[in-house]
Amino acid sequence: DTSVMVFSGNANLALSEGIVKKLNMRLGMATVGRFSDGEIAVEIEENVRGKDVFVIQPTCSPTNENLMELLVMIDALHRASASRITAVMPYYGYARQDRRSRSARVPISAKLVAKMIEQAGADRVLTVDLHADQIQGFFDIPVDNVYSSPILLGDVWRQKYKDLIVVSPDVGGVVRARALAKRLDDADLAIIDKRRPKANVAEIMHIIGDVEGRSCVLIDDLVDTAGTLCHAAGALKKHGAIKVVAYCTHAVLSGSALKNINNSELDELVVTDTIPLSHEAAESGKIRQLSVAEMLAETIRRIAVGESVSSLYVD
Amino acid sequence: DTSVMVFSGNANLALSEGIVKKLNMRLGMATVGRFSDGEIAVEIEENVRGKDVFVIQPTCSPTNENLMELLVMIDALHRASASRITAVMPYYGYARQDRRSRSARVPISAKLVAKMIEQAGADRVLTVDLHADQIQGFFDIPVDNVYSSPILLGDVWRQKYKDLIVVSPDVGGVVRARALAKRLDDADLAIIDKRRPKANVAEIMHIIGDVEGRSCVLIDDLVDTAGTLCHAAGALKKHGAIKVVAYCTHAVLSGSALKNINNSELDELVVTDTIPLSHEAAESGKIRQLSVAEMLAETIRRIAVGESVSSLYVD
Ligand SMILES: Nc1ncnc2c1ncn2[C@@H]1O[C@H](COP(=O)(O)O)[C@@H](O)[C@H]1O
Ligand SMILES: Nc1ncnc2c1ncn2[C@@H]1O[C@H](COP(=O)(O)O)[C@@H](O)[C@H]1O
Repeated sequence: DTSVMVFSGNANLALSEGIVKKLNMRLGMATVGRFSDGEIAVEIEENVRGKDVFVIQPTCSPTNENLMELLVMIDALHRASASRITAVMPYYGYARQDRRSRSARVPISAKLVAKMIEQAGADRVLTVDLHADQIQGFFDIPVDNVYSSPILLGDVWRQKYKDLIVVSPDVGGVVRARALAKRLDDADLAIIDKRRPKANVAEIMHIIGDVEGRSCVLIDDLVDTAGTLCHAAGALKKHGAIKVVAYCTHAVLSGSALKNINNSELDELVVTDTIPLSHEAAESGKIRQLSVAEMLAETIRRIAVGESVSSLYVD
Repeated sequence: DTSVMVFSGNANLALSEGIVKKLNMRLGMATVGRFSDGEIAVEIEENVRGKDVFVIQPTCSPTNENLMELLVMIDALHRASASRITAVMPYYGYARQDRRSRSARVPISAKLVAKMIEQAGADRVLTVDLHADQIQGFFDIPVDNVYSSPILLGDVWRQKYKDLIVVSPDVGGVVRARALAKRLDDADLAIIDKRRPKANVAEIMHIIGDVEGRSCVLIDDLVDTAGTLCHAAGALKKHGAIKVVAYCTHAVLSGSALKNINNSELDELVVTDTIPLSHEAAESGKIRQLSVAEMLAETIRRIAVGESVSSLYVD
């Protein structure tokens, strides 16, 4: 469709290029740089009047920079009379700051981000594996949250793990893990139940289910410092697991994540390219990346022509 | 007043401390840090329910980080039931991106920032020497824009410059320079008229007015890379000026600003502390800093008790 245009911020150019290639398109021309003092300088270099515009920008680290780039681009496109703007956020930053637990005096930054994206002028949002489905309700505009599970599950099938058991890394992830186990020919399910006996005492990992002699597939939506994940891998091996592989959609990998992973009992970490891997992560040897480019290209195509998206990617 | 509380982000703690000292108060306790992946982590550490809260945070460089800190703090204070929140932004970042000239496809980021501050939950804004007065109209909430001119002019008086002449660094600053000249015992006024004969040819500096044998006081709202300012100083000296001093409220000082200033004919640059000086800038020997802390403290006091602010600081 000639009325569709796809622009990209600087957060993940490789993914953006991958998406437009699958769409047989090219990226819209735009300058997205910085002024001398670090303020974002954007200029859209082609006519977008009346166009159906998609802006691809995961708000991964540096989150504030990437988020502001997305907002300033949307503002510029809106003022340049784009007819519809879809913010494509393969990773939604600040998603973990989505509630005030213990009524602590904390922000709900995930909501603040939602308001900012709407105020900037976005008409829709497209995202992948949102940390909490409730975040869709923070928006008044439509949000398409597509799942990477077909991609992750496809890989699990291809690997033909021996005596597979799906493991949820915490009780909060049980529903998701069970849904995936069901689609893996009704694989068994184990759950890791972390308990901290007292404050300032190390967590103890109870394993609910028998992992002896099994290949464990840990599933989570994101991996950040990987501390818990690596602990879990150790606990599973101690209980007789023969292999532990983790599948996590979003490779946040901050702080000592790589060190933790390299020193851990985790045999492999499989992630997607919603967030670009650092050079060191790509070279670590333990991390393998699958691409969501084709899935996002197909979703963008369907949004552009008005086809249903929900029918395609169910969890 | 015990119902007033003042909080600070990390952008300019020295100024925030200066302000609360003048108010005989202390800063409200809050954690304003970062999670491992760089997302902003805020927790307000004391009860703000029903309080009249001020949050001090100039959105200077790193602008996006400082702006997001301000927004996330406002969101947390709002959700913690503060009765009124005033965003105190001694420097308003993105103020120069305030219009689409030549209807270029650029953002109006100054407006985007205004919407974000309102959406986060601010009830008022207090700022100093806004780059363009029109930015007040980008807000639906009240904006108090106070002027640092009494502080800058007080210093000009104290320095007893010989044969003073006020110089506007460009034709856009003439109105402001004239107003200040008037209040300096009707000092003379000169104007620098920059003209670029052709694209990619160096600008030529015409000086309107006679500066021979005079002490020139250049006045501007902000100094960024200082390129134009240093050029102007050279041109003024070439036309016989015996001294050139610049007074600029906001010390952005990015890129090669310090190098430019140190290698220039500028005798002194006088700035305020709306933006903190880097260590190198403070040590350069050519830059002197005046404080807006007392002025902002008095303005906050007046806002808190409902006294008029406009009567105090006129331009
Ligand atoms: N960027 C972040 N890094 C680490 N923890 C976070 C981050 N953002 C929010 N949190 C915390 O993570 C918790 C929520 O995570 P979850 O239970 O996985 O939804 C809350 O306690 C948040 O304060
Ligand atoms: N952070 C910045 N640094 C340098 N120039 C900027 C910045 N933000 C906006 N501008 C440009 O400055 C011009 C407006 O400056 P002014 O005429 O002083 O209001 C416009 O051409 C803007 O594109």
